[in-house]
Amino acid sequence: MSNSLGKVFTVTSFGESHGEMVGIIVDGCPAGLPLCEADLQPDLERRRPGKSSISSPRKELDRGIILSGVFNGKTTGAPLCMIVRNEDAHPEAYEKTSSVPRPGHADYTAYVKYGGYADYRGGGRFSGRVTAGLVMAGAVAKKLLALLNVEILGHTSEIGGIKAIARDYDEVRKNAPANPVHCCNPQTAEIMIRAIETALKEGDSLGGIVEIIALGVPAGLGEPVFDTLEGEMSKAFFSIPGVKGVEFGAGFSVAHLKGSENNDPFILKDGGIATTSNQSGGILGGISTGMPVIARVAVKPTPSIGQAQRSIDLQKMEPAELEIKGRHDPCIVPRAVVVAEAAAAVVLCDLALRAGILKEVIK
Amino acid sequence: MSNSLGKVFTVTSFGESHGEMVGIIVDGCPAGLPLCEADLQPDLERRRPGKSSISSPRKELDRGIILSGVFNGKTTGAPLCMIVRNEDAHPEAYEKTSSVPRPGHADYTAYVKYGGYADYRGGGRFSGRVTAGLVMAGAVAKKLLALLNVEILGHTSEIGGIKAIARDYDEVRKNAPANPVHCCNPQTAEIMIRAIETALKEGDSLGGIVEIIALGVPAGLGEPVFDTLEGEMSKAFFSIPGVKGVEFGAGFSVAHLKGSENNDPFILKDGGIATTSNQSGGILGGISTGMPVIARVAVKPTPSIGQAQRSIDLQKMEPAELEIKGRHDPCIVPRAVVVAEAAAAVVLCDLALRAGILKEVIK
Amino acid sequence: MSNSLGKVFTVTSFGESHGEMVGIIVDGCPAGLPLCEADLQPDLERRRPGKSSISSPRKELDRGIILSGVFNGKTTGAPLCMIVRNEDAHPEAYEKTSSVPRPGHADYTAYVKYGGYADYRGGGRFSGRVTAGLVMAGAVAKKLLALLNVEILGHTSEIGGIKAIARDYDEVRKNAPANPVHCCNPQTAEIMIRAIETALKEGDSLGGIVEIIALGVPAGLGEPVFDTLEGEMSKAFFSIPGVKGVEFGAGFSVAHLKGSENNDPFILKDGGIATTSNQSGGILGGISTGMPVIARVAVKPTPSIGQAQRSIDLQKMEPAELEIKGRHDPCIVPRAVVVAEAAAAVVLCDLALRAGILKEVIK
Amino acid sequence: MSNSLGKVFTVTSFGESHGEMVGIIVDGCPAGLPLCEADLQPDLERRRPGKSSISSPRKELDRGIILSGVFNGKTTGAPLCMIVRNEDAHPEAYEKTSSVPRPGHADYTAYVKYGGYADYRGGGRFSGRVTAGLVMAGAVAKKLLALLNVEILGHTSEIGGIKAIARDYDEVRKNAPANPVHCCNPQTAEIMIRAIETALKEGDSLGGIVEIIALGVPAGLGEPVFDTLEGEMSKAFFSIPGVKGVEFGAGFSVAHLKGSENNDPFILKDGGIATTSNQSGGILGGISTGMPVIARVAVKPTPSIGQAQRSIDLQKMEPAELEIKGRHDPCIVPRAVVVAEAAAAVVLCDLALRAGILKEVIK
Repeated sequence: MSNSLGKVFTVTSFGESHGEMVGIIVDGCPAGLPLCEADLQPDLERRRPGKSSISSPRKELDRGIILSGVFNGKTTGAPLCMIVRNEDAHPEAYEKTSSVPRPGHADYTAYVKYGGYADYRGGGRFSGRVTAGLVMAGAVAKKLLALLNVEILGHTSEIGGIKAIARDYDEVRKNAPANPVHCCNPQTAEIMIRAIETALKEGDSLGGIVEIIALGVPAGLGEPVFDTLEGEMSKAFFSIPGVKGVEFGAGFSVAHLKGSENNDPFILKDGGIATTSNQSGGILGGISTGMPVIARVAVKPTPSIGQAQRSIDLQKMEPAELEIKGRHDPCIVPRAVVVAEAAAAVVLCDLALRAGILKEVIK
Repeated sequence: MSNSLGKVFTVTSFGESHGEMVGIIVDGCPAGLPLCEADLQPDLERRRPGKSSISSPRKELDRGIILSGVFNGKTTGAPLCMIVRNEDAHPEAYEKTSSVPRPGHADYTAYVKYGGYADYRGGGRFSGRVTAGLVMAGAVAKKLLALLNVEILGHTSEIGGIKAIARDYDEVRKNAPANPVHCCNPQTAEIMIRAIETALKEGDSLGGIVEIIALGVPAGLGEPVFDTLEGEMSKAFFSIPGVKGVEFGAGFSVAHLKGSENNDPFILKDGGIATTSNQSGGILGGISTGMPVIARVAVKPTPSIGQAQRSIDLQKMEPAELEIKGRHDPCIVPRAVVVAEAAAAVVLCDLALRAGILKEVIK
Repeated sequence: MSNSLGKVFTVTSFGESHGEMVGIIVDGCPAGLPLCEADLQPDLERRRPGKSSISSPRKELDRGIILSGVFNGKTTGAPLCMIVRNEDAHPEAYEKTSSVPRPGHADYTAYVKYGGYADYRGGGRFSGRVTAGLVMAGAVAKKLLALLNVEILGHTSEIGGIKAIARDYDEVRKNAPANPVHCCNPQTAEIMIRAIETALKEGDSLGGIVEIIALGVPAGLGEPVFDTLEGEMSKAFFSIPGVKGVEFGAGFSVAHLKGSENNDPFILKDGGIATTSNQSGGILGGISTGMPVIARVAVKPTPSIGQAQRSIDLQKMEPAELEIKGRHDPCIVPRAVVVAEAAAAVVLCDLALRAGILKEVIK
Repeated sequence: MSNSLGKVFTVTSFGESHGEMVGIIVDGCPAGLPLCEADLQPDLERRRPGKSSISSPRKELDRGIILSGVFNGKTTGAPLCMIVRNEDAHPEAYEKTSSVPRPGHADYTAYVKYGGYADYRGGGRFSGRVTAGLVMAGAVAKKLLALLNVEILGHTSEIGGIKAIARDYDEVRKNAPANPVHCCNPQTAEIMIRAIETALKEGDSLGGIVEIIALGVPAGLGEPVFDTLEGEMSKAFFSIPGVKGVEFGAGFSVAHLKGSENNDPFILKDGGIATTSNQSGGILGGISTGMPVIARVAVKPTPSIGQAQRSIDLQKMEPAELEIKGRHDPCIVPRAVVVAEAAAAVVLCDLALRAGILKEVIK
């Protein structure tokens, strides 16, 4: 069950980068949710490669197809099976380097773990392409969460050391979708794009940070002590290829904060309870507070770079130099935004159903 | 099952801070492992309060007791039930503030989630005291991992902005246990201690960072796409009260690194494969590479501080000022070290058993 | 996690027959349920040995103790840990035969599976004594189900070929608890008791059938295609030592029925929908229909008999004759009644919570 | 996760009777197993409708297609996605009766549980057609088990009260596949067929019993106390539409057996340990003994019968008479044989992997 996530709203991933398709099963979606293939497309579109100079030139339509679980335009309570076909797969490009693992990639660990049987073409199961499945599950989860008035916003807050800080949520909502790096600040977006283009010219790549903001999350989501909101979300985020760090609210900066600075005072607001600050990222004791849930996800620079790199020929067990051809993104951070949103949405949906909150809304 | 962690080596937590005991069930420990209560004590001792000026004055013996699963000095394959009694519980100290949630604590979210029925005394299930159970499970896991020559080292790498960088593993192994803040550098330890004492005088508290180093982890642990080594470990880390961030290897610094800087070149070493650097933290594609696994965990400043704070009286639904008395650590980072080690050990054990590696060793 | 059952209302079993205690963790019990140790006692009493000439002379008080999860007389939402101490354990009685497996017992399979490390005293984990934990979980589940007006009735419908058929539920409710074999018919109970006494004199034992009737189960419980009501219940029943068959409604008699005989016609009744017969045992498509849920469980004759039996000395790998001394029930069917009730209650509780039904009632 | 079964070898079912396809995901299949679509076909063929006068005239090719998880003719360790398309679906035949639930069918419970959103066409998720997925997973499991020299035999041991007792395994292996009712005795098969034809003429249907024999199962499979071999298998069997009872070895006949009759004496045989009889059905304490594992599964008469039946119009909430047209098997027992084999194979595979036995063989 290592390819399944969630206990009540459970997604199961399948498919390979250069196989016939990638897909996802969603088990536990309540019956009665209006759902059609068009609902999947906007998010798939945001993840789709081949749209600009700074993303992989692989040409994929990435049309989401629902194979089961929907009848008369509504979910039935049965498992949803959703797929995206691989149309521009060029598996032959990868044949020659299959025995020389790419530094920073999963080639070597997959080789060790699966005894050389793993589908290595384009990274196989380890390719970012597999996340198209999660994005479709995320689209379903977002539709469910919308019934609770929960909104998930994602944006690129850093690329190659260039930072953008969101001043308010409207800025994120409006600006992030409007530029190819999904940055909340249009000027900073331009600088990020140029940095990516420079890296590309140098045969190099850039990392960055994605920020996820979930607005309207009701208080009470999260199932301590182990299935905390942070724990479940971080596990989902780390399934995205290239993620090396996850933090919530003040995150790593708590290391130089005092309690008096980090504690969020409680106040009355609009007849309910709120906090004046949100250092906690909307989570205390692993449970949502009702304030916006804030997570940040560090995404490493794409390991596939044009420069020659040192590696090992696993067949001959001798040093080998590797030059990666293929088609790759010089920076996967922008495309990771919608995937991280999907991961957050799937987890929030699962925890809302586990808390008995979402089920009531559907009825 | 929100209080269970792990699929093959499964731990289940129970008990409250000021109830009769805290404990843990370990299901899935292979039969034949020599185990006695003395094996639990060194780690419990490192977590135990009341040992120095900078930790909670609560006096607990914290003697680990094994109630089931061991026969003739060896594990039987049946569930281990291990407990630590609460002896110095003063639940009455908490009665008066039970309706005014402490900022930064789980009081409010527990109140919302459990409808006012949660055991609020000393934080109940949300108290750091509950981690004594995880520490005992960690002690068992470490004994199993030792059969694979895996060693788990933990140390405090930052407190209140004061940083210590481990130059080598021997330094960590030797110095961290020798000072009350578990810092790898004795001089820095002194500075950290003084900073904590100052915070205590000011009625304040400090946060910090714990680093976990797992040496000897064989390549191949981790079960992508969802049960990655990072994902499983981060979920376990986030069960520790106060953790707000988790990163592996280069972590959040990948945001300003280039691929050519972040990729770890493969080399031949001692007849096997290694990498010249370890930016990946010993993990690629969610699977261990055979290099040391490096994780860092951000721990927030203790929310219980002596200063007056703003809160809400939940009964009257009106503002209230709160002054916390009780007994609290001004900085829980040092005591979190052994808990984070335990979390890492439990996860590695589970993944080793899932990979079929550990089982063979026991036989 | 092989010692855990249930996905939302999850029980985890621990303890051995001649260790310090047997116990159970219940994770997922909603907060706010009034619960005290006295609630556990009536069912523990029905399972307790040493009460009559036809049950094991082992003298146990079997007092249920709640170690966690209850505060101010109500459940808190945290895991319940409940135990029963072993007071009349005579482990030394088993030492001599430990290397000669008892026919019909788990001695041999435990030896193979756990490499000789299993606690063999009194059957260890395989003893019927371990079911005391399940009985306590069942007592909690019954309290929850009572909020839905669900009632669980159990009775002995057959022992040693002597059958009793319940004519109505009142008969079961009234008569079954009133005789030591828990038979719904007092006259048949007498015949059963004499049959057991005869078997005991002959150094032999008897098997039988337990029938479980769950009244008031709302329609809609069961999670197909795999977590059906029958599937989940049967898995729970088969955890009871000695169970070799499980059937629902018409059960095995469907093999000689026609569809026109086996189909239950739907009718309107009291403003709702019912069926005129109940061949389905209240379950269609793995989901409860709203009619009484009827299950029957076949329990084998106690394998521990006084007669000499053929076995193998595992150390010497040569034939050995075995005469079992110890203290054993000549027929465990009567004591299995309350255990089967508990298994059914735990499963119904889990499925009710999964269906979102029970949660609403607690609020 | 109600549509998933198994903890290490995990199958997840999806698809509807009259949707686009039915399918199954297999997660946890070890890498390196030779597998192609032709491997799925023999078992699919045995389940396929439209082959004889006594089975549904629905014409389906039932060609198994592998969409993921295989590369270069071998499993990769990634999830297998396998489907069978629905080609002869006539959903319109079911439209008119959708609001009048068929007695003995899941129509009513599905209506209650899924709020009227379930896909009712041909039974939707509750159709026997969904078991085609399980049959494909079973074909994979059988290939894995063959590496351990485990063989799964299934046969029809009773239809409409007509019984056939297998005298030896060769008879089952040879005769069962050779007649349309999959009976081990050719003469009895003829009688069964005539009985089915008679029932069909009368607009009626027949039930029966399927026996599953697993030869070569190594001792040690099963994970007590809850994940017993009987418990896991019975749960899998009860996912097959129409199953109302499951028993192992002596099964329900233990109710009239004495311990001295039911205990299987241990003997030495071929250097190992065996039992002279096999009343236990190869299972003691929930763990395999090394003797053949014997299970029997009671299958009810097809609820879809030609005779007029009493039901309720759910829209009008008034009595309604129902005459089922559609295309149905008068007896699903013969087609359930291969499905029950698949269920047993999937469970044995999961338990073998959990015991660490199968993994070693693949390497």
